[in-house]
Amino acid sequence: MRVGVIGATGAVGKELVEVLGKRRFPVTTLKLFASARSAGTRQQTPWGEVAIEEFTPAAAKGLDLALLAVSGDFAKAHARALAAEGVAVVDNSSALRLEPDVPLVVPEVNADAIGDHKLIANPNCTTAILVVALEPLRQAFGLKRVIVSTYQAASGAGAEGMAELEQESRRVLLEGGQPGHAVFAHPLPFNVIPQIDSFQPNGYTREEMKVAWESRKIMGLPDLLVSCTAVRIPTFRVHAEAVTIETERPVTPEAARAVLARAAGVKVVDDPAQQRYPMPLTATGQDDVEAGRIRANPVFGDHGLDIFLCGDQLLKGAALNAVQIAERMRLG
Amino acid sequence: MRVGVIGATGAVGKELVEVLGKRRFPVTTLKLFASARSAGTRQQTPWGEVAIEEFTPAAAKGLDLALLAVSGDFAKAHARALAAEGVAVVDNSSALRLEPDVPLVVPEVNADAIGDHKLIANPNCTTAILVVALEPLRQAFGLKRVIVSTYQAASGAGAEGMAELEQESRRVLLEGGQPGHAVFAHPLPFNVIPQIDSFQPNGYTREEMKVAWESRKIMGLPDLLVSCTAVRIPTFRVHAEAVTIETERPVTPEAARAVLARAAGVKVVDDPAQQRYPMPLTATGQDDVEAGRIRANPVFGDHGLDIFLCGDQLLKGAALNAVQIAERMRLG
Repeated sequence: MRVGVIGATGAVGKELVEVLGKRRFPVTTLKLFASARSAGTRQQTPWGEVAIEEFTPAAAKGLDLALLAVSGDFAKAHARALAAEGVAVVDNSSALRLEPDVPLVVPEVNADAIGDHKLIANPNCTTAILVVALEPLRQAFGLKRVIVSTYQAASGAGAEGMAELEQESRRVLLEGGQPGHAVFAHPLPFNVIPQIDSFQPNGYTREEMKVAWESRKIMGLPDLLVSCTAVRIPTFRVHAEAVTIETERPVTPEAARAVLARAAGVKVVDDPAQQRYPMPLTATGQDDVEAGRIRANPVFGDHGLDIFLCGDQLLKGAALNAVQIAERMRLG
Repeated sequence: MRVGVIGATGAVGKELVEVLGKRRFPVTTLKLFASARSAGTRQQTPWGEVAIEEFTPAAAKGLDLALLAVSGDFAKAHARALAAEGVAVVDNSSALRLEPDVPLVVPEVNADAIGDHKLIANPNCTTAILVVALEPLRQAFGLKRVIVSTYQAASGAGAEGMAELEQESRRVLLEGGQPGHAVFAHPLPFNVIPQIDSFQPNGYTREEMKVAWESRKIMGLPDLLVSCTAVRIPTFRVHAEAVTIETERPVTPEAARAVLARAAGVKVVDDPAQQRYPMPLTATGQDDVEAGRIRANPVFGDHGLDIFLCGDQLLKGAALNAVQIAERMRLG
């Protein structure tokens, strides 16, 4: 299988190459594309060293699969054309996620939507981590309202975001200086920034609205009442989410725990007596989304449930989900 | 006024001395008490250097005011006896907060409850920061449901917690090593710990239940539906809170913003276009609780409101509120 990773030098791009290797994706030829600036440099991969190429439509011809980890503008310019030429495309940007003819897929939830489509959108990281746990609960208890507060890692802003957090944390701790910022709107070390992406007229950020828009599309619940407060915190690569759910039918923590325990893509980590619950420390580098702190929320009577999720933003929140989609597409 | 600070060497104790000075509390004699270990050492105060004494009931005799920043066990052993001897006592521990004969006070909310009481409990930090913003919204719109997710700083675990975060962050960044932990249940640097205080049989932590129990008592709403997910994150001294409210009467963000803008103890920081919203970076060392990200939450139709709060855990969350209480007590 001839596979191309576009945006191969970014945080998600690098993770895509790793995930392809770990999952023994049947790669015969791997092509890595990035900006002109990186072209010519070489990158270690599970299939040996590969030279980075500058992307051109001509250079991508003949690919069976293109994994796009680049901007929405790039996706708008090239994704449909690639798919029209027979290349299976998984796009990690937000540009096409809400297009009616482009399935938006988390395989554990709606793999059926893939069908014969040659262009599939990979959801927002927070959304992917959320719906993998929400969908089994929806099946078992129905969903009426979902309220999410997030604790999002620097990796959501790419390798530059992670580097800025590390570098500026050092500045604070070593030089006792004021941390700077270029990637984030404000300094992130030892701070909390309640803004991810740009603000919408309704006062929500695009990140917060993506959680609503995309969750509804992936779960096929266009009227689901869902809100989000999306917050950047000084962690490296795992998004945590505090989720309050009002279910349609009565729910108990025990029943919810049993449902999540047999859900694909979810690992129940919920043993308060042993101080075991989801944390970035344990969820980093893990494929499964950790779910814990499962308890009845009396604010919604016997229809209320609280859960706490931790998912690796670069894996289930991005690269892993993209490769899981590709595994289910008709290639070649 | 003869004032004693008990637990003077801790994070809250030191802040109490600072706040007494800043607010020009009419101190004539300042006595500082701590454990036997610290006795004899000297501490700088706005009233000159003061020698730390080991607390004994005899040594506290003759005080007009005792500010307790020590354990619940200490409060149980000594608070009522001190008050019975005529010393006005403000206790920062959780031991007496729910006692029916001990008012639990946030002055902006229920200063009336102080009356002639000689013993007043100072609430949990997260609760104090929350209710100072909730009460004006309650007055204007009524409260039906309140759902809170917190982003709590290391200072909630005292000076030792702050020191551990700093020291272990250095270990990660400088030595590339694994962070250790003694104060927190898990390493805190670049991590998120969804546990503060011990677990209750219902799956909530005591910290989470304190927010429910204490908010109800302070606001005089014994049946308020309120839930909390309390999460420790790697920040130093400001607690952030994502708050979703269902009001009894219709609410708009504009109306809520106007209400909060004239509320005592609250500073509206809510200008998304200028990327201005509450953050630990700006709320640190500030008396007022920052409130922002004010928006309609459609999950509750036209009765839904989201706000984001940041309050200095050592000030409004502890020392400032205690001194504000003392200012309203009958002393001497």
